Amino acid sequence: MRPLAITMGDPAGIGGEILLKSWLAGAPPFIAFDDPKRLTELAARLGLPVPIRSIASTSEAVDIAQALPVMPIQLAVPAELGQPNSANAGAITASIRAAVTMALSGEVGAVVTNPISKAVLYEAGFPHPGHTEFLGELTGAIPVMMLASPMLRVVPVTVHVSLRRALDELTTEKIVTASRVTASALRHDFGVAHPRLAIAGLNPHAGEGGALGAEEASIIEPAMAVLRAEGITVSGPWPPDTMFTPAARASYDAAICMYHDQALIPLKTLDMTHGVNVTLGLPIVRTSPDHGTAFDIAATGRADPASLLAAMWLAAEIADRRTRTG
Amino acid sequence: MRPLAITMGDPAGIGGEILLKSWLAGAPPFIAFDDPKRLTELAARLGLPVPIRSIASTSEAVDIAQALPVMPIQLAVPAELGQPNSANAGAITASIRAAVTMALSGEVGAVVTNPISKAVLYEAGFPHPGHTEFLGELTGAIPVMMLASPMLRVVPVTVHVSLRRALDELTTEKIVTASRVTASALRHDFGVAHPRLAIAGLNPHAGEGGALGAEEASIIEPAMAVLRAEGITVSGPWPPDTMFTPAARASYDAAICMYHDQALIPLKTLDMTHGVNVTLGLPIVRTSPDHGTAFDIAATGRADPASLLAAMWLAAEIADRRTRTG
Repeated sequence: MRPLAITMGDPAGIGGEILLKSWLAGAPPFIAFDDPKRLTELAARLGLPVPIRSIASTSEAVDIAQALPVMPIQLAVPAELGQPNSANAGAITASIRAAVTMALSGEVGAVVTNPISKAVLYEAGFPHPGHTEFLGELTGAIPVMMLASPMLRVVPVTVHVSLRRALDELTTEKIVTASRVTASALRHDFGVAHPRLAIAGLNPHAGEGGALGAEEASIIEPAMAVLRAEGITVSGPWPPDTMFTPAARASYDAAICMYHDQALIPLKTLDMTHGVNVTLGLPIVRTSPDHGTAFDIAATGRADPASLLAAMWLAAEIADRRTRTG
Repeated sequence: MRPLAITMGDPAGIGGEILLKSWLAGAPPFIAFDDPKRLTELAARLGLPVPIRSIASTSEAVDIAQALPVMPIQLAVPAELGQPNSANAGAITASIRAAVTMALSGEVGAVVTNPISKAVLYEAGFPHPGHTEFLGELTGAIPVMMLASPMLRVVPVTVHVSLRRALDELTTEKIVTASRVTASALRHDFGVAHPRLAIAGLNPHAGEGGALGAEEASIIEPAMAVLRAEGITVSGPWPPDTMFTPAARASYDAAICMYHDQALIPLKTLDMTHGVNVTLGLPIVRTSPDHGTAFDIAATGRADPASLLAAMWLAAEIADRRTRTG
């Protein structure tokens, strides 16, 4: 099994801490793309007994049980926990680029990204709305974001835009594309032989026959017709408030949601800790924890590695499935 | 303790069945405003051993343990389960009017309404958007809808309108009004001495400092300033997706939400069964189950009375608290 590549994320955030804790907890084989000096200092500061080993290439075999292997990415200025510094934006993006390059070449099996702060990168001229879009550009693909937890998988059709803009940007085509990519990923990456998609309505009560909104009839149902014609199993449009109950969830493999919070509210309400962000539709496997940099607690040592660990294990599982079937 | 008034709701729905089952399960003292003949026939059909007793006024003492007391409301045509008929719209609204009149006069302690179908009433010329607005007109008050379950209380500032219209209709004034009414109701009806309100953001990540939407700064924060100046404890604007986790919920007594599904998704995802709709801001106490008429299962006998029972017990509790403190 090829190792995973774990990116640095913002070094002022909790990424380093949860990486060290994940190594201690028993993660699948991985290589960090990070600054070895800052990880060594961080381990000492937090009292975490994690030996850091700098390596020059993936071929330098390192037993993951003996040390945490790091492909060096040098910081421009020392990282201060809780104090993000856009001087390190170049190192943050270099870590992502290096990991993606090695995933594309097959030297690593998957990329797991630690949280970045968009504000920090924007300040340094980062031209992408976010991580996922940057990965789309690096790999020449149209990425689709899935959030997966042990209880629920959701795919928001519109993502990091205002709610008003989400309404303006919602189209039949976007719903079809997201659903197609999701159905394919469920088959190939998640091992679901016959994926069932639940398509959310946009409006209260899924529009209640037009009385509470027209988009179900004008945008969503036409998308469902296209998907059905392609042989994809879909149900809906579901009233958004009743589609995440245990009985409803048992009837589908993923929910296609119309906007960010329609997807993220049920996911995080059901399980705040084990959510994983999976980018579908890329030629590489990419996951990430579904939380942010958490600058506010970065200096406390109280960060929970559960979501990063879940992201690493899911990435390993998908990479393994692609290798075996692919 | 004065009895509750339970309205008929749509007689083609599950209202009658869950009323009979609630009586068997042990409900607080109540009087149904319903058609005694149809309840008697329904009990026989479902094999539920519930004696129905027709009464002419609330003063006709009936021991709730001996029989289910009914103030007669005559149907225009026999009710067929699962087959709503707008010919009965007059009886449906007469039941609501009679119950509200007796609550205003103090003959009953509270009104618990069974589900109605807006489409059926619209057909018959019903001029109100829904139950809650009708009650507002009957009582001359501005109603505020709260959904309460053992795990969460939510108040949507905009309710039964399309998502686009909810964005257009959201104002600082509406947030202030809903929050004021909620804080007052938490104190007087729910016995919370120092209510803490969580104010939801509208956009993903609560707008992320303006990058994902402006309404947090232009509409929501000004409302919070007004509320704080009045001495009301508020927190927010919360990122909508992280405000319903167990830790977050422990920090507030009610969440003020910007639109229907932002409130209803977490409520129903956490507990589909025990949600109660409470109308705040009325001179009378009014609750209802948080589900609909369920025409699709009305003929099966499988309806769950849990939400109606929870609505009855909460109505009794609030009525009791108002009597003791008011």
